[in-house]
Amino acid sequence: MKKIAILLSGCGVFDGAEIHESVLALLTLARAGADYQCFAPDIPQLHVLNHLTGEVEEGASRNVLVEAARIARGEIKATSDLDISEFDALIIPGGFGAAKNLCNFAVKGADCEINPQVKAFVSQFVDANKPVGFICISPVMIPHFYGAGAKGTIGTDEGTAAAFNTMGGDHQDAAVHEIVVDEGRKLVSTPAYMLAGNIVEAASGIEKLVHKVLELA
Amino acid sequence: MKKIAILLSGCGVFDGAEIHESVLALLTLARAGADYQCFAPDIPQLHVLNHLTGEVEEGASRNVLVEAARIARGEIKATSDLDISEFDALIIPGGFGAAKNLCNFAVKGADCEINPQVKAFVSQFVDANKPVGFICISPVMIPHFYGAGAKGTIGTDEGTAAAFNTMGGDHQDAAVHEIVVDEGRKLVSTPAYMLAGNIVEAASGIEKLVHKVLELA
Repeated sequence: MKKIAILLSGCGVFDGAEIHESVLALLTLARAGADYQCFAPDIPQLHVLNHLTGEVEEGASRNVLVEAARIARGEIKATSDLDISEFDALIIPGGFGAAKNLCNFAVKGADCEINPQVKAFVSQFVDANKPVGFICISPVMIPHFYGAGAKGTIGTDEGTAAAFNTMGGDHQDAAVHEIVVDEGRKLVSTPAYMLAGNIVEAASGIEKLVHKVLELA
Repeated sequence: MKKIAILLSGCGVFDGAEIHESVLALLTLARAGADYQCFAPDIPQLHVLNHLTGEVEEGASRNVLVEAARIARGEIKATSDLDISEFDALIIPGGFGAAKNLCNFAVKGADCEINPQVKAFVSQFVDANKPVGFICISPVMIPHFYGAGAKGTIGTDEGTAAAFNTMGGDHQDAAVHEIVVDEGRKLVSTPAYMLAGNIVEAASGIEKLVHKVLELA
């Protein structure tokens, strides 16, 4: 049985991991007969957004690992607890948390940096040539981990695609039901809610991504 | 196109709506071609649980509607904003929020009361004889809304089943992949994570419940 790590970035589209994307990835993995383990970095969120009003909750503070535990039903580990020998691949759902907590792309764009705990975690998969699937906005981290020419997609948003290329990546436009595969790097990405108008559209690309990651693993 | 209301109770299995159950219900509805609208009561949660440690966060306070908005990607309404004429049916996912926020079964057992906002909301579906689907622990509210002899399931937990019967219901044991249907009352229930060992098992019953609710609508 293949075992896949899932890297979450909180719990909620505007300040954490996108919940639908995360659950769809878990569901597809489980239906394909794969085992999974959720991880998140033990760090404060950039901020807390009220998901009803869309406004920042001033003074509020939440921890990425503690909130991600909601999606994982408590069964989650800190990224520092990774034993890479146990895992065959990694999948990173989107949501603004990927661009606010895992890295700071939402603030710095093409000048962004990866959180050190996240960098240490993801690098172990990259260095071991184990497949990684990036969903939604999380592919903005691809150029940092894979260097010049790495292929990926964030859908069709021109500004984000340009930033992807500025960082050294080779952006490929893709529709919501499509995946972009960099076979040499065992790297898969899909736009999901960067383009999806509903949960069925999001599922269409995520299911393909999960199956491709499992095939490469 | 049928339009279904989803009543959420927060965001997270231990103090709110169970996230997997909620997303699985939304996914199944959308795949069946139904439209949906999420609702939640605008009330404080009973408490906030740290989902990593399982402990209550002393002094912390969160609002059920604001947290449920995370699952709904911001597209949610307060239960007081229901226009019953727009809807064909209602589905209520589980999670401890259903027994802590929608009613106080988690505290008072068979002596529990339904939150007044929730009572006013759900009663409109019951009074209009529109189908309602109850998932996981949320069926403990069935006897309050449907009176003596109403059939429902919370799986096989003896204590909870006994409380269901004490409140006037007619509990039916059911396996995780099964639904219990009270045809006369247009009432459907399934155990989901009351019994499910994984997300695929939870999905098996929830998909049947959603399809039966749509059939009755």
